[in-house]
Amino acid sequence: MKNMSAEIVAVGTELLLGQIANTNAQWISDELASIGVNVHHHSVVGDNLERVENQFRVSGERSDIIIITGGLGPTEDDLTREAFQKITNMEIIEDERSMNKIESFFETREMEMTPNNKKQARVFAGSDVIKNQTGMAPGMIVSNEGKTWIFLPGVPREMKRMMTDSVLPRLKNQSGGGSVIKSVMLRFIGIGESTLEHELSDLIKRQTNPTIAPLAQSEGVAIRLTAKADSDNEAAAVINRTKQEILKRTGTYYYGDDDRSLAEEVSALLKKNNLTIGAAESLTGGQFTDRLISIPGASNVCCGGIICYDAQVKEKVLHVSSDIINQEGTVSKACADAMAENVRLLLDADIGISFTGVAGPDTSEGHSPGTVFIAVYDQSGKQLTEKFNFHGDRQAIRKRTVLKGYELLFKLLK
Amino acid sequence: MKNMSAEIVAVGTELLLGQIANTNAQWISDELASIGVNVHHHSVVGDNLERVENQFRVSGERSDIIIITGGLGPTEDDLTREAFQKITNMEIIEDERSMNKIESFFETREMEMTPNNKKQARVFAGSDVIKNQTGMAPGMIVSNEGKTWIFLPGVPREMKRMMTDSVLPRLKNQSGGGSVIKSVMLRFIGIGESTLEHELSDLIKRQTNPTIAPLAQSEGVAIRLTAKADSDNEAAAVINRTKQEILKRTGTYYYGDDDRSLAEEVSALLKKNNLTIGAAESLTGGQFTDRLISIPGASNVCCGGIICYDAQVKEKVLHVSSDIINQEGTVSKACADAMAENVRLLLDADIGISFTGVAGPDTSEGHSPGTVFIAVYDQSGKQLTEKFNFHGDRQAIRKRTVLKGYELLFKLLK
Repeated sequence: MKNMSAEIVAVGTELLLGQIANTNAQWISDELASIGVNVHHHSVVGDNLERVENQFRVSGERSDIIIITGGLGPTEDDLTREAFQKITNMEIIEDERSMNKIESFFETREMEMTPNNKKQARVFAGSDVIKNQTGMAPGMIVSNEGKTWIFLPGVPREMKRMMTDSVLPRLKNQSGGGSVIKSVMLRFIGIGESTLEHELSDLIKRQTNPTIAPLAQSEGVAIRLTAKADSDNEAAAVINRTKQEILKRTGTYYYGDDDRSLAEEVSALLKKNNLTIGAAESLTGGQFTDRLISIPGASNVCCGGIICYDAQVKEKVLHVSSDIINQEGTVSKACADAMAENVRLLLDADIGISFTGVAGPDTSEGHSPGTVFIAVYDQSGKQLTEKFNFHGDRQAIRKRTVLKGYELLFKLLK
Repeated sequence: MKNMSAEIVAVGTELLLGQIANTNAQWISDELASIGVNVHHHSVVGDNLERVENQFRVSGERSDIIIITGGLGPTEDDLTREAFQKITNMEIIEDERSMNKIESFFETREMEMTPNNKKQARVFAGSDVIKNQTGMAPGMIVSNEGKTWIFLPGVPREMKRMMTDSVLPRLKNQSGGGSVIKSVMLRFIGIGESTLEHELSDLIKRQTNPTIAPLAQSEGVAIRLTAKADSDNEAAAVINRTKQEILKRTGTYYYGDDDRSLAEEVSALLKKNNLTIGAAESLTGGQFTDRLISIPGASNVCCGGIICYDAQVKEKVLHVSSDIINQEGTVSKACADAMAENVRLLLDADIGISFTGVAGPDTSEGHSPGTVFIAVYDQSGKQLTEKFNFHGDRQAIRKRTVLKGYELLFKLLK
């Protein structure tokens, strides 16, 4: 399969109307690059039989592997199978296993199955059917006139699962090794993109393999290292050499690779230190705790939290004194301190963290949106209380507050 | 220009490596839709002369307007002009105004201009040159054999400025002020995509203007209505007629248009009924409350919540009896009931809602991941307790639980 070219065809009018971006093609391309498959084209075509058919003709002529996303659903608009049948005359049959799955889906939910749902179980005779673990329509791998056609649903969750479980292992196997592109993201928090770039400027200047690209991220900044080599191991070694050199200089700010989130790193640090945490969340509304609980094994590190958006909840549940609330206000150092200390005691946690402030769009108690206090307490007493002025809209202020909470914990626990 | 078809071709290997998504195509499509230009294809091709040339041939054959982004820069990789010249033999000349701009850019910065920068000032003889207000390479509009070719830089900021200032007014003008495409998404919850389509099948079958497309969404399902008309008002009227017909049949499940979220609709219903809500969240970890608090004006409807991930928090803070916890377990109807009833009282809210269950990946108290109880209490007592078996991984189960909570409240409050 060396030097074979792949093409990704997305079928869906919503893409051509600009309602969504073709992130499926981006994700698939990234995965194919990691196993050394060259992608030469992305195409998007709407839910129109003739145009899908013509696109398939063009793609089939110029590419060896054609990955199609979308158009396999139950509705009239879903025309991928019909278009492919037009150009190949392949027979379409009902896949029994998929049909059983669809029927049992409706049975267990005691819902009536409308006839169009059956459409989703149809596959090309002789194709390799890819089971859909997270949805209804199965995927298919079809060999036709020396080309490999791979049909996947357009729903990202379903498509990704099929790619990861079935398509990528198979393509990797076919390729029998060969050149590999490997990419690693090093993630940093508490250092700006330009400072990071400055610290590494000589490395960036003489970069060849791996390439070194600093990137601003929603969580801190990242460095993307991309290596090309003859094998996975070699590419990993090339990346690791540069990674070690980078961490020697900026390792203090480094919290993980690739998809590692700061919350995961903080969760791991809590677990390592055998500590539990409880949060008192006002403006963050549960978002801090939600991120911790999204991580499997959360019960080891997080017992829960109190969402005290209303001043009454701060007073009644968290026992913040009415003196503090009436004299200092809820957007104050004193209130943040009382919230963090009391939530720790109330939840019997090792660490208590609190978030109070103004998310906006309106001012509150005379404070402008973005005014935020975060406090951290542990058994030995107060660790810190900090005041921030975050910019942005309500969503951005709340997100930055949560992220800052994790950043402060990362520094304390590291 | 009515019924003309447009195509967007992006030139750039970074897109094929999955390093970025083709958000340029999304933005351009959205803008073209708003002036009534139909986009029938998106294509992405890498920085390879032969492949760009072949893509241009394919695009020129099937589309009337071809908008090309990228490949106009100073490096060896920038091949867009060369590829177009290969298929048209058009002469390339140096644009004096652009050349002056590039030279003065380097002069004012006292930087030496490398020769390759001159490349950027080259344009096709006889083309309409589009000034680049925010960068170096100018854009071009070229008429060739009845087709309109529009060349733009790949940098989003530069491309958008040229589109807004020059390309869109011109295309709109060509089209004689004329047709407009308008799109509305109608959002539904509690009804499947196939059932919805079944209910509307006769409308869908005879659809012409507006077109009617059912779409599975992460929150329920949607119907996209897309109308073409001579003016904004007329398009809105066309859409509204069909919308009313659809709502006559399936209005029970309808919760809003376009970007409206179910949480926003529930928040609006709470406000309308002058009700507040408090949540007891175990497996959802604060995510239900977070969504409510993300909406401006949250204080009118949500006082807070208790995140009781740990059984001790259920017992100590929410006063769920130890009998229930030891005998029925935390994943039980009785526990959900006690949580909902007690959180309402504790937070002094009008409605209490509770979420308890197994997010996975491991089983808990003998229950498999996805086993979830949701209960709702109000001043008059219990409204409902329901048991669910959600599918998917930890994230999907938690998300589905939160969404189901909003769905139940929507039904109760509507």
